[in-house]
Amino acid sequence: MSVTTPRGFRAAGVAAGLKASGGADVALVVNDGPDAGVAGVFTTNRVKAAPVRWSQQVVQGGVVRAVVLNSGGANACTGPAGFQDTHATAEHTASALSAVSPRLLLGAGEVAVCSTGLIGERLPMPKLLPGVRTAIRGLSRDGGPAAAEAIMTTDTRPKNTVARGSGWTVGGMAKGAGMLAPGMATMLCVLTTDAVAGPAVLDEALRAATRVTFDRVDSDGCMSTNDTVLLLSSGASGIEPTPAELAAAVTAACHDLAQQLIADAEGATKQVAIDVVGAADEDDAAEVGRSVARNNLVKTALFGNDPNWGRILAAVGTTAAAFEPDEVDVAVNGVWVCRGGAAAEDRSTVDLTGRDVTIRIDLHAGTSAATIWTNDLSHAYVHENSAYST
Amino acid sequence: MSVTTPRGFRAAGVAAGLKASGGADVALVVNDGPDAGVAGVFTTNRVKAAPVRWSQQVVQGGVVRAVVLNSGGANACTGPAGFQDTHATAEHTASALSAVSPRLLLGAGEVAVCSTGLIGERLPMPKLLPGVRTAIRGLSRDGGPAAAEAIMTTDTRPKNTVARGSGWTVGGMAKGAGMLAPGMATMLCVLTTDAVAGPAVLDEALRAATRVTFDRVDSDGCMSTNDTVLLLSSGASGIEPTPAELAAAVTAACHDLAQQLIADAEGATKQVAIDVVGAADEDDAAEVGRSVARNNLVKTALFGNDPNWGRILAAVGTTAAAFEPDEVDVAVNGVWVCRGGAAAEDRSTVDLTGRDVTIRIDLHAGTSAATIWTNDLSHAYVHENSAYST
Repeated sequence: MSVTTPRGFRAAGVAAGLKASGGADVALVVNDGPDAGVAGVFTTNRVKAAPVRWSQQVVQGGVVRAVVLNSGGANACTGPAGFQDTHATAEHTASALSAVSPRLLLGAGEVAVCSTGLIGERLPMPKLLPGVRTAIRGLSRDGGPAAAEAIMTTDTRPKNTVARGSGWTVGGMAKGAGMLAPGMATMLCVLTTDAVAGPAVLDEALRAATRVTFDRVDSDGCMSTNDTVLLLSSGASGIEPTPAELAAAVTAACHDLAQQLIADAEGATKQVAIDVVGAADEDDAAEVGRSVARNNLVKTALFGNDPNWGRILAAVGTTAAAFEPDEVDVAVNGVWVCRGGAAAEDRSTVDLTGRDVTIRIDLHAGTSAATIWTNDLSHAYVHENSAYST
Repeated sequence: MSVTTPRGFRAAGVAAGLKASGGADVALVVNDGPDAGVAGVFTTNRVKAAPVRWSQQVVQGGVVRAVVLNSGGANACTGPAGFQDTHATAEHTASALSAVSPRLLLGAGEVAVCSTGLIGERLPMPKLLPGVRTAIRGLSRDGGPAAAEAIMTTDTRPKNTVARGSGWTVGGMAKGAGMLAPGMATMLCVLTTDAVAGPAVLDEALRAATRVTFDRVDSDGCMSTNDTVLLLSSGASGIEPTPAELAAAVTAACHDLAQQLIADAEGATKQVAIDVVGAADEDDAAEVGRSVARNNLVKTALFGNDPNWGRILAAVGTTAAAFEPDEVDVAVNGVWVCRGGAAAEDRSTVDLTGRDVTIRIDLHAGTSAATIWTNDLSHAYVHENSAYST
C-alpha cells in the first residue's frame, strides 16, 4: 500500500547526502502510463517555494510523467537562483530518465518537483543531481515505501496509503509533522491511480478530497511555503470509474494520510477531533473548529488533561459564525460540561488520560457540521521547534 | 504613581478569600469628583463575561463613581445567575458606599464591575460582598498600589503607571499575563485622571490610546471574555487640557502598562517588538506584525535563540497585505538576515541572548508602519497553561 500499488508507477528513495542526519532524502515517482494525467493543490501562502511555483506551471501543462522530491532543504526564499535550481533538477531528471527509459522521452515541463526542509538556504546541487541519477537506477514497482521514507523530515514514521476501487486503486504517500497548515495541511503528498480519468475529473476529485481532509487538519496554525498535493493517473487499469467513485477513493486515501499526519504531529500527546454540529452552514462549522484548534490555551489545557471548556467557549466567541453565546453546548469525550453557555455536567468526570480526544460543539444555529483535526501543545513541541532550525 | 495619583480618587485592595492561594483579591476605585466622567473599551469576544455586559451598560449611562474589581473568578459563562451576581455586587457597592460617603449617593448604575479568573464558575458571593465592605472601609488616597495588587492573577508583579500633564495627571493600573488578546490586549485596566474632559473627549482619548497600545500587544493570540479598559475623570484639577494633550497622556499611560503586561507575559523569556515598515497602510502593517506575533514556529524559534527568518517570511505570506514576496527585507536585532525575500547577512551574527528582541520587516510597499509587541513561546508557557486551570 503505497504510490506503487496502482499499476503503471515505479518509485525509489535514496540517500544523496542532503540531510545532515544521513538517511534517504531523494524520492522519485515515475508514471509509465499509458496516461500521464495530473491534478495539483498547492499552498495558499503567498511566499511560495521555488518548487511550488515550478510545479504549478507543470500541472497547468496537464502532463506529469515524474515527480522528484527531496527532504533536507525547502528551496524557499532562495530567489531566482533557487528557481533555477528547481528547473535544473527537472531538466536533469527528464534527460536522465529519457536516456534509460527511451519510451518515456519526457521534457522538463513534465517533471514536478517538491522540496521540504529549512527555508532560506540553497540546495546542494552537486549532491542532489547525482542523487536523482541514483534514484533513476533504483526505480522499481516496489519502490513506493522507500520513496515515502525519503521525504520524511521530523516525521517519526513514513505515511503510505491505498484505497481500492473495482479493478483500480489509488495509492499515496505523504510527509509532514510540523508546519501543518490552516489553508492546506500537509507539506508533501503524492497520490497515484491506475484509473482512467480526464483532467477535469482528476482535478475535481482532488479538490473535493483535500477540502474535507488536509484542509481540515490544523496542527499548529502555521502555513508552509511548500505544501503540495499531486494526483497522478496512469490509466493502466483500463477502467474508468465514475467521477463520484474516483472522488470517494481519493478522499479515503487523503483522509487516511491526514490522520497519519496529525497522529505524528511534532510533540503531540493528544489526537483531537473537534466536531462542530448545529452550524448554520459548513463554513461556519469549519471556522469554529479551526478557531478552537488554533487556540494555544485550549491546546495547553488538553496537554494538561484539563477539560477547560471556558477556553473553548472563549475561542468560539472570536469567530463570526452564527450562534448565540447562551445557547452553545460543549462536550469533551462525551461529557456535556457546558450547556447553554454555562457549566453543566461535572468536569471532573471527563477522562482525558487517553491519546484520543473528541470535542463536540453544538452551536444550535442550524444543521451543518464539520470536523477539524488537531493536537495538543506540549513541551515536546516547544523543544522540537526551539532546539532545531526547520 | 497609581490610580490614586490624580486628585479625586481613592482606592483599596483587600483579601476576601476568593483566591485559593490567598492574598488580596478585591479592589475598589472610587471617584470623589467633582466630575464622574467615564469612557470604556471592552473585549470584542462575542462570549462576554457578565461584568463586561454590565459595565458596557454602565459606561453607556455616562457616569461612573466606582469600579469594583475581583480576581479569583471571571464570572464568564455563568448564565443569568452570573449576571445577577454582578448586578448584586454593583448594588451592594453602591448602597454600602452611599452609607459611608453620603455625598456620593450613588446607584448601582454608576458602579462598573470587572472580574478575572477561571471561566465557567459562579463567584462565591458570601465572600465577595463582605470583601467589598472591607474595601470600602479601607479606601484611601494612597490605595492605588494595593488595588493593583488585588487584581493580579498569574501576574508576577503589579502594574501601575502615571503620565503627567501640566497641572493634571493620568494614573493607571492593569493586570493580565495570559489571555493577552488580538482585539484588545489587557484583561483589566483602570485609568484615572483629574483633568476636566467631556465624554466625547474622554472616549476619543481612550480609543486613540488603546488602538496603538493594548490593541497592538499580542501575547498568545487568545482573546479573553473579560477584557476591560476604563478611563475615569474626576475633574479635580480644574484644568481642561486640549483633546490632543489628554490623548497623548492617556496613550503614554496605556503604552507603559502594555509594556509591563508583555514583560510579565506567562512564561516569556523574550520581549519582542515587531516593527513593520514600508507598508501600504497602517492596517497592512498591523496585520503583518500580528501574523508574525501569533506564529508558533516563530515564537518557539525565538525561545531557542534561532533567528529563523524563513518562518517569519512564511508568516508574512499568510496575510493579505500589499507586498511582493521577492522584495521583503527582514532584520533580527539589527542584522538584515533577509533582503529581497532571500538570505542576506549571516544569520550566525545575530545575537539573541538578551531578553529584548526587535524584528524589523520592510515590505517595500509604501510608507506606513506599525509595531506589534509579543513574546516567545516557552516551556514555562506550556507548563503554566497546562498545569493550572485559569
